[in-house]
Amino acid sequence: MSFIDNWLRSDIKVINAYHVPYSADMVKLDAMESPFPLSDELTSQYLDYLADAQLNRYPSPNADELQQTLRELMDIPDEFGVLLGNGSDELIQLLALACDTGDTILSVAPSFVMYGMVAKFTRLNYQSVALTNDFEIDADAMQKAIQIHNPKLIFIAYPNNPTGNMFNRATIERIITSSKAMIVLDEAYYAYATDSFLTDIAKYPNLVLLRTVSKIGFAGLRLGLLIAAKDTVKQLDKLRLPYNINTLTQVSANFLLQEKGIINANASIILAQRQILFDALVKTKVLKVYPSQANFILFKAPNANILFGFLRDNGILIKNLSTTKQLTDCLRVTIGTLKQNQKFINIVKSFYNPTRRRK
Amino acid sequence: MSFIDNWLRSDIKVINAYHVPYSADMVKLDAMESPFPLSDELTSQYLDYLADAQLNRYPSPNADELQQTLRELMDIPDEFGVLLGNGSDELIQLLALACDTGDTILSVAPSFVMYGMVAKFTRLNYQSVALTNDFEIDADAMQKAIQIHNPKLIFIAYPNNPTGNMFNRATIERIITSSKAMIVLDEAYYAYATDSFLTDIAKYPNLVLLRTVSKIGFAGLRLGLLIAAKDTVKQLDKLRLPYNINTLTQVSANFLLQEKGIINANASIILAQRQILFDALVKTKVLKVYPSQANFILFKAPNANILFGFLRDNGILIKNLSTTKQLTDCLRVTIGTLKQNQKFINIVKSFYNPTRRRK
Repeated sequence: MSFIDNWLRSDIKVINAYHVPYSADMVKLDAMESPFPLSDELTSQYLDYLADAQLNRYPSPNADELQQTLRELMDIPDEFGVLLGNGSDELIQLLALACDTGDTILSVAPSFVMYGMVAKFTRLNYQSVALTNDFEIDADAMQKAIQIHNPKLIFIAYPNNPTGNMFNRATIERIITSSKAMIVLDEAYYAYATDSFLTDIAKYPNLVLLRTVSKIGFAGLRLGLLIAAKDTVKQLDKLRLPYNINTLTQVSANFLLQEKGIINANASIILAQRQILFDALVKTKVLKVYPSQANFILFKAPNANILFGFLRDNGILIKNLSTTKQLTDCLRVTIGTLKQNQKFINIVKSFYNPTRRRK
Repeated sequence: MSFIDNWLRSDIKVINAYHVPYSADMVKLDAMESPFPLSDELTSQYLDYLADAQLNRYPSPNADELQQTLRELMDIPDEFGVLLGNGSDELIQLLALACDTGDTILSVAPSFVMYGMVAKFTRLNYQSVALTNDFEIDADAMQKAIQIHNPKLIFIAYPNNPTGNMFNRATIERIITSSKAMIVLDEAYYAYATDSFLTDIAKYPNLVLLRTVSKIGFAGLRLGLLIAAKDTVKQLDKLRLPYNINTLTQVSANFLLQEKGIINANASIILAQRQILFDALVKTKVLKVYPSQANFILFKAPNANILFGFLRDNGILIKNLSTTKQLTDCLRVTIGTLKQNQKFINIVKSFYNPTRRRK
């Protein structure tokens, strides 16, 4: 037995490393990325801006300029605090580290896998309450779980990933007001949703929001933010590793995220494309298509595994969730460009209608 | 009492947030940064290279190209594994997360403050063994501490920060061979040292190395690396947050760190400047100057606090360690350019020789 096998705690040893599928030369509709690259003009401007960055010096410790840019991009009131992370993942981990030994993190299932992973990394208990068949929070089961497990943190993705729906607002409000936990609403998909709890932070001191720029065109930046009451952010900030946001990210994001017009216009295109793709998927009549408030669509497909492979063989990568509990035969497709979506839907159609395929 | 005051564990509440001193328009000799900016030519080339980065897509999950570049820059044998982090800090935290509830981290004091901070963040026990008066590891006290505390992780900075010396190699070897702990040698200052444990990884399965590009010209990148046996890295990698190194860092670092010639030449200049500065500080006769294997010099100064303020008032920021245990009256100066070092030494001289100052 090697040193590390003896040394490492067994619950980490049994984890399978996070697997990222091979995607070179494929149409990537698997990871909720924006399909829109930067324009050459904007790239050139931002690189000019980056030329002045002093890479031999440590970054600005608090990234004040970037914080201000994010406040303007996302209309974050001055009265709230903002904390930056390398992706929401780092902030999820920071929140878990703020908990104490023996504490419990509660969430729902199916939802974003990192809540459970980070609970494991940080040696906390993790509990999840199964969503109802229409992917709604089971309010009574949730209240019961809160009573039994007395969670320190409750993570709720709003809208939810991978199901795409927004949970009932009243149910979430009840969770916030009936629990002593910190409630973390993960609004990664806020740009594609009709509701947000952003302004509710003023009302609920135990409410914390997570957002990211990954789904609005900047997945490569790995920039997430936590929004909460100022005194909450001031305390949580003590757990942030020094200089966590590097100079390249600060300077680049500060420039690029000022382009609110472009970012919003791209989001509008995705919203329109989502509707078109939703209608097209419904029209196949073989698929069960779930309504979405995000930049992806979940659907249940006969022979989902085979369809997934058929799409892959035809150069389109989506996400196969068919082995996830409650998501049997489900696949998730990220909204791409008009052309990408058309290619995707044509392959789906030809899969279920092979006669047409052969024509 | 606010929500967060009730909610947060008390050992975090009592922490004072990491304070970064104001340094605009000052000669920064406080943070072990390289004083050498990129040439305009190299900046222009690297920005051209960066123009092709697809910021709307997630980064390469394993940063394979950058890993290879780092292997070549630091002569890391193929047989070892490499794990990348946002600064060594993220890797120190990852190692702490690999430990189990109740485990102990052991280090020496004074040393890098993040070992103790991260132990606190990750809810582990932390113990440190006091260095001897000449900043050497007290081998017997260390053995005793290992027996009493049975540490899971032992952090040793080699060379040590803030003292600047390299500990006795035989003492470290004894620690490695006599303990079941994972021994983490933090070689942040490797570029300025005459010894390294890099190749010893082949001999000692419980030896892990940390390095960073922060001290060799790229503090703004926040890029650290862990080097260890391949099976160790494979297991630790499970605790790495997905896509932790963003696209900007991967692409920029991959280009910039191929400039091994420039990086080594800059390190040579610092080594020569370190000798000149050391001699000049000794020549003042009022200072006790400690030998250094790093890009900084620690010295004990009469009226250290006043000297620190005098330097600051004259536009030079160094690090005041005078309230650190075992470092009474000690200051730490980072090696800068010839001109910066001269300015620094002239102010020190004028402080102790006010007559000369008035001339």
